[in-house]
Amino acid sequence: MADAEIIAVGSELLTPSRIDTNSLWLTDQLNGLGVEVRRKVVVGDDRELLSAVIRQSLKQVDIVILSGGLGPTEDDVTREAVAEALGRPLVFRQDLLDALSERFQRLNRKMADNNRRQTFVVEGAEPLPNGRGTAAGQWIEDDSKVVMLLPGPPHELKAMFTGECLSRLQKKLPAQVIRTRFYRVAGMGESDLDQLISPVYKPYANPATTILAGAGDIQIHLRARAHSEPEAEALLTAVGPPIEELLGDRIYSRNGANIETVIGEQLRARHATLSVAESCTGGLLGDRITSVAGSSDYFVGGFLTYSDAMKTHLLGVDPALLARHTSVSEECAKAMAEGARQRTGSIYAISVTGEAGPQSQSGAPVGTVIIGFAAPDAEAQAKRYVLFGDRNGVRARAAQWALDDLRRRLH
Amino acid sequence: MADAEIIAVGSELLTPSRIDTNSLWLTDQLNGLGVEVRRKVVVGDDRELLSAVIRQSLKQVDIVILSGGLGPTEDDVTREAVAEALGRPLVFRQDLLDALSERFQRLNRKMADNNRRQTFVVEGAEPLPNGRGTAAGQWIEDDSKVVMLLPGPPHELKAMFTGECLSRLQKKLPAQVIRTRFYRVAGMGESDLDQLISPVYKPYANPATTILAGAGDIQIHLRARAHSEPEAEALLTAVGPPIEELLGDRIYSRNGANIETVIGEQLRARHATLSVAESCTGGLLGDRITSVAGSSDYFVGGFLTYSDAMKTHLLGVDPALLARHTSVSEECAKAMAEGARQRTGSIYAISVTGEAGPQSQSGAPVGTVIIGFAAPDAEAQAKRYVLFGDRNGVRARAAQWALDDLRRRLH
Repeated sequence: MADAEIIAVGSELLTPSRIDTNSLWLTDQLNGLGVEVRRKVVVGDDRELLSAVIRQSLKQVDIVILSGGLGPTEDDVTREAVAEALGRPLVFRQDLLDALSERFQRLNRKMADNNRRQTFVVEGAEPLPNGRGTAAGQWIEDDSKVVMLLPGPPHELKAMFTGECLSRLQKKLPAQVIRTRFYRVAGMGESDLDQLISPVYKPYANPATTILAGAGDIQIHLRARAHSEPEAEALLTAVGPPIEELLGDRIYSRNGANIETVIGEQLRARHATLSVAESCTGGLLGDRITSVAGSSDYFVGGFLTYSDAMKTHLLGVDPALLARHTSVSEECAKAMAEGARQRTGSIYAISVTGEAGPQSQSGAPVGTVIIGFAAPDAEAQAKRYVLFGDRNGVRARAAQWALDDLRRRLH
Repeated sequence: MADAEIIAVGSELLTPSRIDTNSLWLTDQLNGLGVEVRRKVVVGDDRELLSAVIRQSLKQVDIVILSGGLGPTEDDVTREAVAEALGRPLVFRQDLLDALSERFQRLNRKMADNNRRQTFVVEGAEPLPNGRGTAAGQWIEDDSKVVMLLPGPPHELKAMFTGECLSRLQKKLPAQVIRTRFYRVAGMGESDLDQLISPVYKPYANPATTILAGAGDIQIHLRARAHSEPEAEALLTAVGPPIEELLGDRIYSRNGANIETVIGEQLRARHATLSVAESCTGGLLGDRITSVAGSSDYFVGGFLTYSDAMKTHLLGVDPALLARHTSVSEECAKAMAEGARQRTGSIYAISVTGEAGPQSQSGAPVGTVIIGFAAPDAEAQAKRYVLFGDRNGVRARAAQWALDDLRRRLH
């Protein structure tokens, strides 16, 4: 047993506005067990088509997971379709009816007639209790094959898979150990990163390497499978340390923490406080810093100075400086950071000024961003970047680069 | 012809971190033509399995759209799988080779040998030019059926579908007229909205009604199909105007514009300027306002005052007021808005203060948010809300409610 297919059931998943995300979570769980997903299918509430899809899946793989279509209405056809595909009848379960009646009593609601549909299972199935909804799941074995019926709502599906299916699956799968490494990287583009590290990971299928990139934020996942822990660790050693060596301090996290959380830890360790002065990011930098619970311990506040006049008025940036260098200059970024630090009394301050577009106001090319930094007993400093993207892409990268700049300085 | 299936090809789409979103866009396009999607499939780079999936699709529907797997490498198996499923050979096209060679010359790059794979099409296929990449698409007719091969990168796929496939499809489909209405709604939850308007739209399958909800932002789409424009408009009349009546000024946009864009138009029409004072939203409000291109015309700047001390120091909020009412109070929100207005010289100012959690600092329940507003020649005003969600859910709703509060006041 090593391959699986995932079938999501529900006509709403075939509209332009809804997407099946359960399969991503299930894939992660299955991969963790050494099971690969070969195919994912989304079908509507169409018994005949669903049953044809299940039959094809059973020909191709040993594990078939269905999500959704277990509700009480006529539209919910998963039970019937699975029974049909396996050539087994549906049978009534008194224990499911008892559990359902009790649930409705507890919630002080009357059970509708159509909920009775939810008390039938495919003959030979083990019902899987659902603590969070009315739809029981089902675990069905058929020769060497396994079919799982799970409810569609993500919190019900996750709880049922984790609580009921994981241990049953593990028993059926060859014993194996999974060991992972996880790096988060800032300050470089995806293609530059891949060019740098692909010679290290490309030769190895095990560990499997996955790279996931957002705006200036890259995640690298390594996953090794083996029969024993030392063997899995040995496999990781061929790829993990060379990648760490190549990326150096561009790796900002090894435990999944995002960069704003890492900065929070750095500031807390120093008992330091932080303020911001934002121009082109317009609040995004403060938003990211304060998205961390407990950030009021170190973040005092800041200034959104979108116009030159506000840079002067709120932060004390010299109008002559702006006239000479424009607002998109190292001089302005330094003065903004220094102004924020002085006016809030924070230990550190960071500033962002630049051209997010669509038109340049200062004459500097769109994408130009200057990050400033002020600290006690030192001159303020600034760095210039040219960042990629449309208006909101530049803004997102500018905030990310500013956070990374701060992280390196506090390192 | 009325049903379609969409097949996304690529092993990366079977990992936990990648999802096929092309199918959402394609579904929207197909629905617009009156075509329903019956099944969506994701398969890896597996020729045999892909070919079996295509064969099943051709049995079930008249339109099969494949995305991805048209690249130059051995992993790119879509061409071969379609040829196999249709029982036709692949044939070399000199015109595709010429176009490809020219493209590489223009970019001053050497064409790799394996790019030759991209010059083969299924016999009888019409090649579809790709202005944005090396992979040509294919349009294949087989009796009454149509198979489309499109490239995987979304911007290539969209350009090719819009430029090449849409008009070809329209010719094959029965003539029909589509008319739509689109409403964006703020200031109420999804279930409250649905309870209010479902008696209006539920009785009608045509127009089709789709409701899509984000944090405090709801989109309502109506889509009517008919043989003529007056007929389609008549169908919309049964649902659109009653919904407009029920929702009144909760509808903030009828053309898709988001609320920050609507506010921008309101401010521009009044030649007015705006500043913000943010506590619990930490910059998110400013971020949203400045995400609109050209917002520097009306947004001057603002203050992130995360601590009580900063509210006093940067905005002039009276410490005695904070001691008496705490920072999560109408009094504080009004003083913050007034302070921002005075210190920036803007015409209007909005403020947000509240408890985003996880712990309450002021004693007010987590989710409590106060929105303040200051304008010329009037007392500042404030409104209290209790918003739903975890820390970042409350923050997102707080920004949305603040924007909606401003929109109504400027109405």
